[in-house]
Amino acid sequence: MSRIVMKFGGTSVADVERIKNVAVRVKREVDAGNEVAVVVSAMSGVTNQLVKWCTEIAPLHDAREYDTVVATGEQVTTGLLAIALQELGVSARSWCGWQIPIHTDGVHGKARIMQIDTDDMVRRMREGQVAVVAGFQGIGPDQRITTLGRGGSDTSAVALAAAVQADRCDIYTDVDGVYTTDPRIVTKARKLDKITYEEMLELASVGAKVLQTRSVEMAMKHRVRVQVLSSFIDAPGTLVCDEDEIVEKELVSGIAYSRDEAKVTLVRVADRPGVAAAIFGPLAEAAVNVDMIVQNVSEDGKSTDLTFTVGKADLDRARKVLEDAKGELSYEKLVSDANVVKVSVIGVGMRSHAGIAQRMFQTLASEGINIQVISTSEIKISVLIEEKYTELALRALHSAYGLDAA
Amino acid sequence: MSRIVMKFGGTSVADVERIKNVAVRVKREVDAGNEVAVVVSAMSGVTNQLVKWCTEIAPLHDAREYDTVVATGEQVTTGLLAIALQELGVSARSWCGWQIPIHTDGVHGKARIMQIDTDDMVRRMREGQVAVVAGFQGIGPDQRITTLGRGGSDTSAVALAAAVQADRCDIYTDVDGVYTTDPRIVTKARKLDKITYEEMLELASVGAKVLQTRSVEMAMKHRVRVQVLSSFIDAPGTLVCDEDEIVEKELVSGIAYSRDEAKVTLVRVADRPGVAAAIFGPLAEAAVNVDMIVQNVSEDGKSTDLTFTVGKADLDRARKVLEDAKGELSYEKLVSDANVVKVSVIGVGMRSHAGIAQRMFQTLASEGINIQVISTSEIKISVLIEEKYTELALRALHSAYGLDAA
Repeated sequence: MSRIVMKFGGTSVADVERIKNVAVRVKREVDAGNEVAVVVSAMSGVTNQLVKWCTEIAPLHDAREYDTVVATGEQVTTGLLAIALQELGVSARSWCGWQIPIHTDGVHGKARIMQIDTDDMVRRMREGQVAVVAGFQGIGPDQRITTLGRGGSDTSAVALAAAVQADRCDIYTDVDGVYTTDPRIVTKARKLDKITYEEMLELASVGAKVLQTRSVEMAMKHRVRVQVLSSFIDAPGTLVCDEDEIVEKELVSGIAYSRDEAKVTLVRVADRPGVAAAIFGPLAEAAVNVDMIVQNVSEDGKSTDLTFTVGKADLDRARKVLEDAKGELSYEKLVSDANVVKVSVIGVGMRSHAGIAQRMFQTLASEGINIQVISTSEIKISVLIEEKYTELALRALHSAYGLDAA
Repeated sequence: MSRIVMKFGGTSVADVERIKNVAVRVKREVDAGNEVAVVVSAMSGVTNQLVKWCTEIAPLHDAREYDTVVATGEQVTTGLLAIALQELGVSARSWCGWQIPIHTDGVHGKARIMQIDTDDMVRRMREGQVAVVAGFQGIGPDQRITTLGRGGSDTSAVALAAAVQADRCDIYTDVDGVYTTDPRIVTKARKLDKITYEEMLELASVGAKVLQTRSVEMAMKHRVRVQVLSSFIDAPGTLVCDEDEIVEKELVSGIAYSRDEAKVTLVRVADRPGVAAAIFGPLAEAAVNVDMIVQNVSEDGKSTDLTFTVGKADLDRARKVLEDAKGELSYEKLVSDANVVKVSVIGVGMRSHAGIAQRMFQTLASEGINIQVISTSEIKISVLIEEKYTELALRALHSAYGLDAA
């Protein structure tokens, strides 16, 4: 017997028929003798409608009232799923965030979970009752409803799994697992059986949006085994787990890419202490998130070129901030390019193996693809290349690291 | 300075524009120096959609889960109205039933309010904050959300007005007050300035659906002054209040009618002790509500004719119950007629004045309308007549009692 937390997203509970379908899946776990808690999102489209109403009344609205309005979406799904389970003869009850309670901090609209008191819920789960829990919400120190921010239901599920010491947290979604790369581009992409938390985090941060980043961080911290699987196809998914649990480690687990990047270069910026702070301080103040940063060694000891990437949507804002500060920064020229893609090779194996970066550079070179910026972390190498080479680069790298399906 | 509870129904908050309009009306009361609590219903159509989903999943569903689902409709409106008020510069916050809390009994789906702890809310109202309260809901002894049954928002408003000792409870609706009779039928119908609780109760029970019956009972019990007025037209409505507050009492306040009646006659039923119980017991068990009952004095000492009315929707069920019991009841014939209307003359004045019933009978007789059944209470005389005479009877009686507008 295991204790399992299952999580179903908005498309999995989009209408009455799909909610019934979810109930069938939950019943299967119950029939197998498991104790089950189910975390649900709002029916797809509902949250957007609720947000729209708030914004139509006041573009800038009180986050506490926004939370009161938006949290109803998940509440509706919990009641409907509980009814669907009961209809199948499965004992079940719904839980709002405030009923469990899921205590959060007071940052309405993007609260963080502080503590979950699951005593009452677990007692009922032990008696065979399925707990149907509203994702994405909790109760703040002001005793008012809080929400965790968009996509927060994954985080709710993992936090709940940690709180009830679940054996597994199954995240049902509209993809059937985590792939070695985007299967829409590389037909030979393979579904991974297992992936480490660290790799999953890097994948999420470079644009493979299977799980919300925060939920993976939380899973890693509390060692919650998370399975990503399809709510429409009946097949095992991908287990996100501790490195120790993966017997046959691959050197490289996956190739990710992100088109949401733009490159900015400050040509011949003064090379003196404090210049980086002078550049990135104003950008941070303007809420521009900077990703890759490369600064070359100064040739003349007086000036250098500095290149970094920002989100495409932030490019205009970034340019304005830097142009306004031109006098202070005394650079020669500001050059930007939104026509780029970031491609990343990810794998915990590269910690202990040399030559992985080298293979990436060789592979791209042999395809005639120029590398504009390089940045590395312990388990990831990212390069910025011209956008038109995206598909070519992904396919070549996928083959080069031996990831192609047989 | 007064303390006022305002209540807006589903059509008054049907969309974002109407919610903004409600905020303007609330602001006016705040600007006049009043302490204000606002009770809101779900946006019209929302509750029906939520109920439909529950029913589609399981026609017979857990009332606790139904409550969890359906209560979200009002919660959404509270948040949106609070935002709209803040946008006008009015301090406001939303309150769910469980937050105040509004304690109810545990009868999910049709709970009754037991007690309301308004200390925190009133403290904030004193500081100038408008309390925006979800109608139709509370929290049960099981710490789960309860709903008061359809139309329960009126009851929420009156109960809240009693709890905060409000000077007035204004019920905004899609009619602009209580009329002497249906203005769609009698063009000379007049809007009443004031009406007593007792008269309002009788009007509600005979089909003038301006206020929910239970809310009027509660207002009468706690002496809450209730004003019915339009949320679309800017004019005073009708005040439902204590008899003492009405200086110039009319003998008759209004003429009501109900087409939702059917007549059943048992011809030559045995005239012996216990026969009424034998007839109405099985009807009650079958949840058939019986209204007017007339039994004639027996001519031969052995049998009598017994006539009563039931709701039109219950007629087939009532017939079947009585036909099944024919052996025991030993009546000669069962005759029914759905082609009837109940017309009622209502007024507290008839307590102290004779001749009011007589005027009704004379008026109908002079129009050639035959009276089939008569039933009276302290402040009401009801007759059953053929349905085709509805309009004629209403107009004639309205004139006869001097109710016509000048």
